[in-house]
Amino acid sequence: MRYKFLLHNLSILMIFLGISMLFPLVVAAIYEEDDILTFAGSFFICVAIGAGGYLLTKGSKKEIGPRDGFAIVAIGWIVLAFFGSLPYLFSGSLHSLADAYFESVSGFTTTGSTVVTNVEQLSYSILFWRSLTQWLGGMGIILLSIAILPLLGVGGMQLYKAEVPGPVTDKLKPRIGETAKLLWKVYILFTLLEFIFLKIGGMGVFDALCHSFTTMATGGFSTKNISVEAYGSAYIEGVITVFMLMAGINFALHYQLLKGKIKTMIKDNEFIFYIIIIAVSIIVLLINLMITGGYSFVGAFRYSSFQILSILTTTGYSSVDFEQWSHFSQYFLLLIMFMGGCAGSTAGGIKCLRIFLLFKQGYRELYRLIHPRAVVHVKFNNTKVSSEVMDSIWGFFFLFMVIFVLASLIMSMLGMDILSSISSVIACLSNIGPGFGTVGPYDNFAHIPSLGKWVLSLCMLLGRLEIYTLLILLVPEYWNK
Amino acid sequence: MRYKFLLHNLSILMIFLGISMLFPLVVAAIYEEDDILTFAGSFFICVAIGAGGYLLTKGSKKEIGPRDGFAIVAIGWIVLAFFGSLPYLFSGSLHSLADAYFESVSGFTTTGSTVVTNVEQLSYSILFWRSLTQWLGGMGIILLSIAILPLLGVGGMQLYKAEVPGPVTDKLKPRIGETAKLLWKVYILFTLLEFIFLKIGGMGVFDALCHSFTTMATGGFSTKNISVEAYGSAYIEGVITVFMLMAGINFALHYQLLKGKIKTMIKDNEFIFYIIIIAVSIIVLLINLMITGGYSFVGAFRYSSFQILSILTTTGYSSVDFEQWSHFSQYFLLLIMFMGGCAGSTAGGIKCLRIFLLFKQGYRELYRLIHPRAVVHVKFNNTKVSSEVMDSIWGFFFLFMVIFVLASLIMSMLGMDILSSISSVIACLSNIGPGFGTVGPYDNFAHIPSLGKWVLSLCMLLGRLEIYTLLILLVPEYWNK
Repeated sequence: MRYKFLLHNLSILMIFLGISMLFPLVVAAIYEEDDILTFAGSFFICVAIGAGGYLLTKGSKKEIGPRDGFAIVAIGWIVLAFFGSLPYLFSGSLHSLADAYFESVSGFTTTGSTVVTNVEQLSYSILFWRSLTQWLGGMGIILLSIAILPLLGVGGMQLYKAEVPGPVTDKLKPRIGETAKLLWKVYILFTLLEFIFLKIGGMGVFDALCHSFTTMATGGFSTKNISVEAYGSAYIEGVITVFMLMAGINFALHYQLLKGKIKTMIKDNEFIFYIIIIAVSIIVLLINLMITGGYSFVGAFRYSSFQILSILTTTGYSSVDFEQWSHFSQYFLLLIMFMGGCAGSTAGGIKCLRIFLLFKQGYRELYRLIHPRAVVHVKFNNTKVSSEVMDSIWGFFFLFMVIFVLASLIMSMLGMDILSSISSVIACLSNIGPGFGTVGPYDNFAHIPSLGKWVLSLCMLLGRLEIYTLLILLVPEYWNK
Repeated sequence: MRYKFLLHNLSILMIFLGISMLFPLVVAAIYEEDDILTFAGSFFICVAIGAGGYLLTKGSKKEIGPRDGFAIVAIGWIVLAFFGSLPYLFSGSLHSLADAYFESVSGFTTTGSTVVTNVEQLSYSILFWRSLTQWLGGMGIILLSIAILPLLGVGGMQLYKAEVPGPVTDKLKPRIGETAKLLWKVYILFTLLEFIFLKIGGMGVFDALCHSFTTMATGGFSTKNISVEAYGSAYIEGVITVFMLMAGINFALHYQLLKGKIKTMIKDNEFIFYIIIIAVSIIVLLINLMITGGYSFVGAFRYSSFQILSILTTTGYSSVDFEQWSHFSQYFLLLIMFMGGCAGSTAGGIKCLRIFLLFKQGYRELYRLIHPRAVVHVKFNNTKVSSEVMDSIWGFFFLFMVIFVLASLIMSMLGMDILSSISSVIACLSNIGPGFGTVGPYDNFAHIPSLGKWVLSLCMLLGRLEIYTLLILLVPEYWNK
């Protein structure tokens, strides 16, 4: 019965996936590409399987419990990425399942790492599909992180339980529907705005659309081999920088802002922390670039602000080959790869919310040593953070590091040097895109052995699903009862 | 009054330091070296300052409170390392204060990183002093971690409150005296045993004594440029491997074992975890060395067991240039640099106890998601670990990582490549010794700019003093009340 219910929901997702393939099909038609057949075939397969599953499992409707929520989310992402890889295989853009799955999962998790060696040789419809998977993935994440994870109690997301717009109830169904509609409107509005601004800057309709999709999703797939650098335009970089900044902010706060409640945003501890981290990081990198890179102030500001935001928001665009920068600049970028944007945004990584609270508790422990009998609580937005929530955040942080360590060990076992092993894993686990070494901004992930691609695909999913959501499926007890 | 009391205790430490300089003075006399004057001068300065301070602050005796404990321990280590550096300067072995302090602090913190480019050119008495500082440092650490830190409530050390031999009381003084005597006996016994075994293996008296000192302290200073590799003897490596293993175990457990209570040791969660980690690490490295390094099973076992124990116990000897090994082997060694040995041993690092409990809580958080209402406690040795202790351990882990990140950023800012920046800091913060890149087992720390040497000296102190003990002095409130 429970499996039937799971299948029922997966079937619905499959139908939606199939329908979404009609968009690149239209693109193929406009550009008169052979890939019309690619997307028609993929559409048919997805809808047929989805409809078949739907009919077979009809009548299994019941209220979703937390335990079912985990399975639908985690397995849903895995399965959609699988069927989403069909167009890459059918079109001949990629030849192995490992490659196609990697590219697809990199899309749906809004990571942006690619195994395509020459992006500019892909057809328009395939390029469009790559960007669209990120945009759809971004929608999924907003829903997941604001409406679902807080209720499931994953890694500190409980803190945002109260801030979510829409009817507050412990039943998932009505909440999901309401919240989805509200926040997706914000997401679509921002995408549209960015499209307009990019168009004004002289970008073509197709490129502007694709980049708007992948900016708001903090995905980072580009239609150009050297990413945003290809346009060589400070205006375009500026527009993208601003929209990356927006995409890294909790969408519930955007919604409040649009409703005129500006105080909710500027008083939010995580938002303030996010802005401070960005400002400090830009200044640090800017100074280093001026000293070691021979940049002028304007040039250093242009490149540092773009690259800091691209990595902190886990978008992963590049506007310069930052592997030419000083050791410090590169190491600094590598380290902020762990951070990520705000919870409830489309960004990945550990998230500002958690880092902020970890710092607060670290300081509290020092304070406690001086005043052993004092009771001091860690606070967030003036509210006491319960020890359960803190435990959950510590657990998240530690599991994140453990996965990072294990995965990067495997990559080094496959023969990659230490820096490439480390950066390929964190680039995927934090859903960023490019790393350093052999997976730098001018490189790609094609040369990695298949096993490595599967490991990195798993990292992308683990990072995107906030670790717990996926790991919990591996605990035997989850399935027993 | 409080400062007077602090000065009083520091004066006593200075007198002891001065007296300890008589040993290398005797060595200088035996080998008829000019450094008799070096040590006579250093002795005089230390004892004069110590005696003067003692007389000036006489009559300030009172019970030591936790807050005073922090200051004596932290400032004591800093000051002793300073005066301990005099022989390096007076003898002309090292020419700048940054170098001499680095070498001295590397001794007293039992780290083993060196700025001496040619160790074999040093006089016997200076070599002896290097080794002796580590051995004395080791004594200090045993006392600190078993008798003082548990009472101060630093980073989970509270768990060992009950396991410490000697009278249990909340007053520090009597406990320190009793515990010190008992555990130092164990420490001296092991040192003597190792000396005998090394002597049997054909090592000269001088080398055997120096290496026994630096093994039991998990220090790792050697009298040879290429460390233990110089002897090319499997027997000597074997003896040292066994004694490194012992030095990484909680000395309170050794004491129980010598009293016949073997169960206390083999039932200790941390001890079991330590043994498992060692066994698994040796097997993993052994297999990788056989596959990628062309070693026979015997050769791979010899090198992997020595190197794993050398790094896990944070000793830092090398028996081979492990920078010639595969990426995986090197990365694996780099990662276990964070771990360290058991709490209550002379080893540094995060410590097995903490890593063990972090894993346990990580798993508990997963379990909690499945059973949101279940109350599950993290246990250690069948006893519930309080949330205060867990918080303190999390705080430690996080602060350790923050310091690691900040310090390695500074190193990269000084122009070091990423791998050298990372490994030089962790080698010092975990009190190991050599790292990778430009600070590998065949290299040294001499080429690092002075600022870098001061930063690394601070890292050694922070690591050795379990972070909190030193950081707390930076909290203004500590000094106010």
